[in-house]
Amino acid sequence: MYGDFFIMNDFDDIPERGEGGDVGIVAYADFSCAEPLDFELGGRLESFNVRYETYGRLNEDKSNAILVCHALTGDHHCAGVYSVLDKKSGWWNNIIGPDKPLDTNKYFVICSNCIGGCRGTTGPSTVNPATGERYNLTFPAITIRDMVAVQERLVSHLGIKKLAMVIGGSMGGMQALQWAIDFPGRVERVCALATTSRQNAQAIAFNEVGRSAIMQDPVWNGGNYELARVPSVGLGIARMMAHITYLSDKGLDEKFGRDHKKIAGAEIFKPSFEIENYLHYQGQSFVNRFDANTYLYFTRALDLFDLRAYGGSLEAAFKNVEARTLVVGFTSDWLFPPEQNREIVKALLRIGKKASYAEIKSDLGHDSFLIHSPKLYRLVECFLNVGE
Amino acid sequence: MYGDFFIMNDFDDIPERGEGGDVGIVAYADFSCAEPLDFELGGRLESFNVRYETYGRLNEDKSNAILVCHALTGDHHCAGVYSVLDKKSGWWNNIIGPDKPLDTNKYFVICSNCIGGCRGTTGPSTVNPATGERYNLTFPAITIRDMVAVQERLVSHLGIKKLAMVIGGSMGGMQALQWAIDFPGRVERVCALATTSRQNAQAIAFNEVGRSAIMQDPVWNGGNYELARVPSVGLGIARMMAHITYLSDKGLDEKFGRDHKKIAGAEIFKPSFEIENYLHYQGQSFVNRFDANTYLYFTRALDLFDLRAYGGSLEAAFKNVEARTLVVGFTSDWLFPPEQNREIVKALLRIGKKASYAEIKSDLGHDSFLIHSPKLYRLVECFLNVGE
Repeated sequence: MYGDFFIMNDFDDIPERGEGGDVGIVAYADFSCAEPLDFELGGRLESFNVRYETYGRLNEDKSNAILVCHALTGDHHCAGVYSVLDKKSGWWNNIIGPDKPLDTNKYFVICSNCIGGCRGTTGPSTVNPATGERYNLTFPAITIRDMVAVQERLVSHLGIKKLAMVIGGSMGGMQALQWAIDFPGRVERVCALATTSRQNAQAIAFNEVGRSAIMQDPVWNGGNYELARVPSVGLGIARMMAHITYLSDKGLDEKFGRDHKKIAGAEIFKPSFEIENYLHYQGQSFVNRFDANTYLYFTRALDLFDLRAYGGSLEAAFKNVEARTLVVGFTSDWLFPPEQNREIVKALLRIGKKASYAEIKSDLGHDSFLIHSPKLYRLVECFLNVGE
Repeated sequence: MYGDFFIMNDFDDIPERGEGGDVGIVAYADFSCAEPLDFELGGRLESFNVRYETYGRLNEDKSNAILVCHALTGDHHCAGVYSVLDKKSGWWNNIIGPDKPLDTNKYFVICSNCIGGCRGTTGPSTVNPATGERYNLTFPAITIRDMVAVQERLVSHLGIKKLAMVIGGSMGGMQALQWAIDFPGRVERVCALATTSRQNAQAIAFNEVGRSAIMQDPVWNGGNYELARVPSVGLGIARMMAHITYLSDKGLDEKFGRDHKKIAGAEIFKPSFEIENYLHYQGQSFVNRFDANTYLYFTRALDLFDLRAYGGSLEAAFKNVEARTLVVGFTSDWLFPPEQNREIVKALLRIGKKASYAEIKSDLGHDSFLIHSPKLYRLVECFLNVGE
């Protein structure tokens, strides 16, 4: 079944697979690249750092590497914990580990923080060695192509000629597709989840509201805020709003419904509904872990993403693609809805590429790709074995 | 066809009707009510003002009155212009006028600014005569029931025993349904468009983000801002975000797509996409016409709206309804999607009430009810003639 390439809607008949183990305690590494980096839209860094993690062992012929690409607010820490006291595993721990779909007994899994990030890779909050000041808004504009170019440097640095797979969801899925286009000979398989071939007007609109909230926060100060006092109001608002777009109407209704405390008198505007408390919690915890300027740069990279720019059509953009491609849409995802995922595969199939589309029923919205999903696990596992 | 009551999905076969004329130059009136008003959730006003407009003439037996209820950001000015120089007609001018569906040759159309509003009716920005200060957050919490109670005062003041119809979309639709429940003998027909029987978690979530943006704007100052310097940043953000929810993915894509100016260098975070400029324009023009505290009160009234609270179920809430009811959903409305509209009619039909549901295909999202729609016009016109 998985040796064929096809469009598979209403994907609902995959047997579930067993649970696997955890990668355990992990540590990040830094790759300091002294080769200059020229950005797609102009601007250059003379040198930069890439923070990354790896799980599993690279085999002798270096053919078992899987690159995981993170989404807007993710980072390089996608599996394991940093210490026995660390209660929070990496963001995709459910899919990475021994006997998990990204099986660290078989594969060498790599994940790096994107260029422009705020978790160790050079970004706007990094001090520019040439000036001794943080880059802030002097950092060059970033595109998905730039993110992938930096990942290619890391992969080459690790001595890997060809990746067994590049996988990611949302912004990570964009990177995976960009890999297939920019480095066709360097990637065997591409798996893009809950993604799109171009950011549409509604998604741009939400990003712009978030950026406006940040940039109109007086603390933001043209991007030159102190790290001890960040534009937490604006960034919190941006996150609260964006978080709604990651979920679904039905999912929210099932989880929170209209549950609320009694509302009256002077307290009427205090968060009283469960969904309100949840959103405020999401906003607050985000502010503590993410940089506002990186949020601006990454959302702009999303807005700028349009594969049709590379040749005028999706078919032209995919002309040189060699990778087998699997794209997965989720029924309740209204940020990057199923049809936006499906059209990627349709374009690949039209020009004779090896591509499959699967649609997973889920009420959990865009974030479905991050959440425990035995069907997704099985699908990814099968895709990895295709053609072997 | 329209004498029957039924659920009509995929409503697509209604002949279009001709255009009508305009009501011309109009003026508002004020109803000063000296009878105290007790609010549903507590609190009282000793007296209050209601600003309203009327179009057409009340007939001798006062049986031809139609009450129009406005949505969140609407007001009493729903048809005509204030002078020959006035370029902007009332917000529902397309449906109200001679030979239009709400035909002012036949009907006496009334529209009032809701209690808590900011366009002449007593609200948080009104000076409390007891203190000489603006009410601001000392204004009582408002519910849809309170809005309707005030409308009933106005209708009685005008000597009208029974309304020929109450009609409204979105928050206006909630008021129309509340009329049917609270004053069953006072309303012949109820027409509710693009609405819901209860605000669900996602809609509450968007409202809470908007309120948070306002209340965290330092200018808001606990609600005690100067009218010369309002929390325009927070209110603008709230409006920009909310405006996205009034439209649709497809509608935005068709109208704006990814059209943008070249983005590079230091300008990358300036609005460059057409959709961005549009949203900023919407935010700015809203700030100039709407009060931030009213926005807080009205959105909270929306959140609190749940007809099931009146008896435990929709059927119980509708037990005493006498009005014929028409509910209209719009296919691309994702704020109050078709199914939320349909379930209102299903509940009415289950308990033997006269109710119809119609669904209009539209790519224009929630705002479809406000926009030129010959099908809606014809439907409303037919509904008004049912049973005559």
